Amino acid sequence: MLEFPLYTTNTFSVLCEYIPFRKAVYFLSGCIRRALGNCYPYALSSSHNMSYGAAARKDPVYQLGNKCLAIPMELHRKNRQRLCARLREQWSKLVADKQAPVHDLKGVFVLLQGGTDTYRGDSDATTAFRQESFFHWAFGGLEPDWFGAIEVQTGRSILFTYHLPDDVAVYDGMPDTPEAMAIKYAVDEAYYSEEMTERFQQWGTTLILTLRGTNTDSGRYTLEASFPGIEKFLVDNTILHPEIVECRLYKTPEELDVLRYSNRISSAAHRHLMRCVRPRMHEFEAESIFLHYCYFHGGMRHVAYTCIGASGHNCATLHYGHAGSPNERLIQDGDMCLFDMGGEYYCYASDITCSYPVNGRFTDDQKIVYEAVLSASRAVLAALKPGACWVELHELAERKILNHLLTHSLLRGNLDDMMKARLGAIFMPHGLGHLMGCDVHDVGGYSPNAPPRPEARGLRNLRTARRLEPNFVITVEPGCYFIDRFLDEALASEELKQFLVPQVLNRFRNFGGVRIEDNVVITETGYELLTDVPRTVQEIEEWMAAPPDKVLRF
Amino acid sequence: MLEFPLYTTNTFSVLCEYIPFRKAVYFLSGCIRRALGNCYPYALSSSHNMSYGAAARKDPVYQLGNKCLAIPMELHRKNRQRLCARLREQWSKLVADKQAPVHDLKGVFVLLQGGTDTYRGDSDATTAFRQESFFHWAFGGLEPDWFGAIEVQTGRSILFTYHLPDDVAVYDGMPDTPEAMAIKYAVDEAYYSEEMTERFQQWGTTLILTLRGTNTDSGRYTLEASFPGIEKFLVDNTILHPEIVECRLYKTPEELDVLRYSNRISSAAHRHLMRCVRPRMHEFEAESIFLHYCYFHGGMRHVAYTCIGASGHNCATLHYGHAGSPNERLIQDGDMCLFDMGGEYYCYASDITCSYPVNGRFTDDQKIVYEAVLSASRAVLAALKPGACWVELHELAERKILNHLLTHSLLRGNLDDMMKARLGAIFMPHGLGHLMGCDVHDVGGYSPNAPPRPEARGLRNLRTARRLEPNFVITVEPGCYFIDRFLDEALASEELKQFLVPQVLNRFRNFGGVRIEDNVVITETGYELLTDVPRTVQEIEEWMAAPPDKVLRF
Repeated sequence: MLEFPLYTTNTFSVLCEYIPFRKAVYFLSGCIRRALGNCYPYALSSSHNMSYGAAARKDPVYQLGNKCLAIPMELHRKNRQRLCARLREQWSKLVADKQAPVHDLKGVFVLLQGGTDTYRGDSDATTAFRQESFFHWAFGGLEPDWFGAIEVQTGRSILFTYHLPDDVAVYDGMPDTPEAMAIKYAVDEAYYSEEMTERFQQWGTTLILTLRGTNTDSGRYTLEASFPGIEKFLVDNTILHPEIVECRLYKTPEELDVLRYSNRISSAAHRHLMRCVRPRMHEFEAESIFLHYCYFHGGMRHVAYTCIGASGHNCATLHYGHAGSPNERLIQDGDMCLFDMGGEYYCYASDITCSYPVNGRFTDDQKIVYEAVLSASRAVLAALKPGACWVELHELAERKILNHLLTHSLLRGNLDDMMKARLGAIFMPHGLGHLMGCDVHDVGGYSPNAPPRPEARGLRNLRTARRLEPNFVITVEPGCYFIDRFLDEALASEELKQFLVPQVLNRFRNFGGVRIEDNVVITETGYELLTDVPRTVQEIEEWMAAPPDKVLRF
Repeated sequence: MLEFPLYTTNTFSVLCEYIPFRKAVYFLSGCIRRALGNCYPYALSSSHNMSYGAAARKDPVYQLGNKCLAIPMELHRKNRQRLCARLREQWSKLVADKQAPVHDLKGVFVLLQGGTDTYRGDSDATTAFRQESFFHWAFGGLEPDWFGAIEVQTGRSILFTYHLPDDVAVYDGMPDTPEAMAIKYAVDEAYYSEEMTERFQQWGTTLILTLRGTNTDSGRYTLEASFPGIEKFLVDNTILHPEIVECRLYKTPEELDVLRYSNRISSAAHRHLMRCVRPRMHEFEAESIFLHYCYFHGGMRHVAYTCIGASGHNCATLHYGHAGSPNERLIQDGDMCLFDMGGEYYCYASDITCSYPVNGRFTDDQKIVYEAVLSASRAVLAALKPGACWVELHELAERKILNHLLTHSLLRGNLDDMMKARLGAIFMPHGLGHLMGCDVHDVGGYSPNAPPRPEARGLRNLRTARRLEPNFVITVEPGCYFIDRFLDEALASEELKQFLVPQVLNRFRNFGGVRIEDNVVITETGYELLTDVPRTVQEIEEWMAAPPDKVLRF
């Protein structure tokens, strides 16, 4: 029974169709993927006919269609369990510190409010809803305006949904009843949200923990749950946030499976794009190719962030591609591309940057800059392990890049002196990487008990200063850019200008930049590389010499 | 000089490359498009190297890359002029009615606030910004957090932007200076928004008109402009909304050009999809093909609404495709598809529905339902002209559909009696269509001076009850659905059950439905059809018998 006779062309995908167990496929994938050149868009999606629709199953899963990854709702149950365990562990300390408003955990509930629809201005047009990340982490839930509660002592989980008016149901389809919802999301109970007050009273609620906290990347606040009647209960909005953030830092095996899938599909999309892109294509056309691959082959309706589809000098604009600079340039022969694009599946992100010459052949100057960044990337990867300090890894990346530029005469002088003078921040004005999970810039970079943000130039841009721990998922993304404003500033600086060789640097003034970004899981002994794209100059040139796979003709 | 040697394959596209004037292309397109079977994805994009980037041009345009439609900023200037003219005309009436807080128009300014970024939860991830529609209509503007002012008496236009902090500028790229912004958007002046109070004082402002009003489709409010210091001025928030809404109803030639382009690209995407779709494809894969075509070939980063990619029984769910029902079904051989998808370019919408059998051959039953709807569609189109009453056209569509079902023995009895009993609303529980422009459900359906919402079943779903006028742009979208809930209700109704033939209707229980949606401009004598897709059974079957165009291999 071939599910995809029309677009399945390689042996591995075909093979997968006949292997009923995902675990077997996982095993096989490890053995076979290298041999097959990684051209399998949906290699791990062999499980058939599993979806929310099969609501009566004992192990409900989320799966878009039958070709994308099936995700057991166990993922959310484990996250809830971890949160409850942590709160129970912390409670005596919270009581001792007089932070806990009640001594006994009996009757204490966590309450999260799901995301709401976003509308275009005053109109009735919404963008396709994407669940709020904390709620997704704890419950999943494809639809807006839900609430989720967890009894801390027992781990009992409850979802609350809304009553859809009859006329809306005709338009949107009949929503699940609470009973169906409880089965679909594998929670213990489900009710309509109009019953919230009554239910919490019935359960002898002594305290409701709501989520209120600041995101250290955005400076923005979480949405704190509220409902008509909440004033009848004791509410605390300070305890939950640091604890749930701490839980989100460490990814479970179930979460890692989704992150692997997101990375696998996005890697394949990058590989495909490398073979499609060519001079006289627009940057936005490259973005479109990437998006289409991710959605068509991987079921990724959303990307984790707006695609950065930079070419030429635009590669020096770190967050290029936003609405004001919408990937509009016509890519010229001889340009470097810097494509920072990552799909997300089931609200789990990927974040991958590939830099390469649009025509598939590096010039000598392009090699210099690319290999400077690659040397940093590989050095950092080699140093990844539990206990490694992220700030030191950032410095390692800077050192590698500066050393390479020194070797190729863009710089002169002593490397240690350059490091002391923070010259690295001129060429790499962003942090080495960031935690990744349900958010592309995942929460937990800076927490009360974690090292504070460094103050030195360049280092203060780091999104975390932590030491690495097993099951952290983090990006490694060194870069080297030629940004006029910073170069001019360095040339005007007494301290920095001694290191610069202006006549050589001027050759790179319009170069743009290079970034190489991979996603990794920290393991007990080192790391697992999630990203799978050609990285060396030779790998890239060989990969780009071949035409796009015929499988992708839509 | 071929711009697109890689993907340009048909004669017409090649020809366009050599024709320097857009008008010539428009003329040619009229003559040639039919002959070429409409396979030209970017036929009208012959103007080269025109973009915001060319800021010093006297006639600045918006154009994504060099292959999409170039839009003169004159579009917005005309809209502002129309608004000012209307306000000046209305002012004496407003003064007489004691609605105008000042007698003299000297010093009266319109102030609009642009859209803001939408973030994912507490994170720093935004979705690609799309301008708020009123602001776009008046000023354009690709970026969030702007203000725009218009002096009513003179039409003088002013944009206000924000000061980007230096560190953000490194990430996002240097923003335009106010001077560059004024040239790019063809406004008279531009300043930083921190100067707003000072400027309005300098200009002797006597009254600021802000936008406050309810959208009659969503029931939601517009964003009313506000800035620190606005309390120093007299502000009125009741006058502007009805007047600007009335202006938005009538599309200018410049607006019609953009709407034609949006429709042309989206029509081509539908035609392409018709040739790509096949049994055992998922609905979301079809969505992905559509999205990719629109963006890659038409520069449409956004669609006008979430794609409805329904198949089989899902075709009876009118707004299928939202996050809770995310186009996830595997399309089966023998299914009908109902693809309601429309791209938007430069915030001008298209909204097209094509219904057809996934395998390209209609069954007899599929023909019955399809031709019922087609007969309604063609009858309504033939009746479109200034003065035609939208409610009556809706009834005409119902009558045509019921008559066809009667002819094919799904119904029995007298057609006039069915119409009186509102049987049509059982099979077509939505309105015939809606105004379209910067919003897919454009403003102005119900206004103080327009006919009120009808109360009868079916008719109360109409988004307008107006008589048509020249330069209205509206969708014509009759549909026929087999919705269990409504059929059961009708079978249980003393008044309705006499018309139903249950043994025949039961054959259609799992059919889903058919919708045929075209977009038209009302002209002085009739209408101009913007949508260009195969519509008759024969046209569809012939079109789908051919493979997808090789031009579209990404």
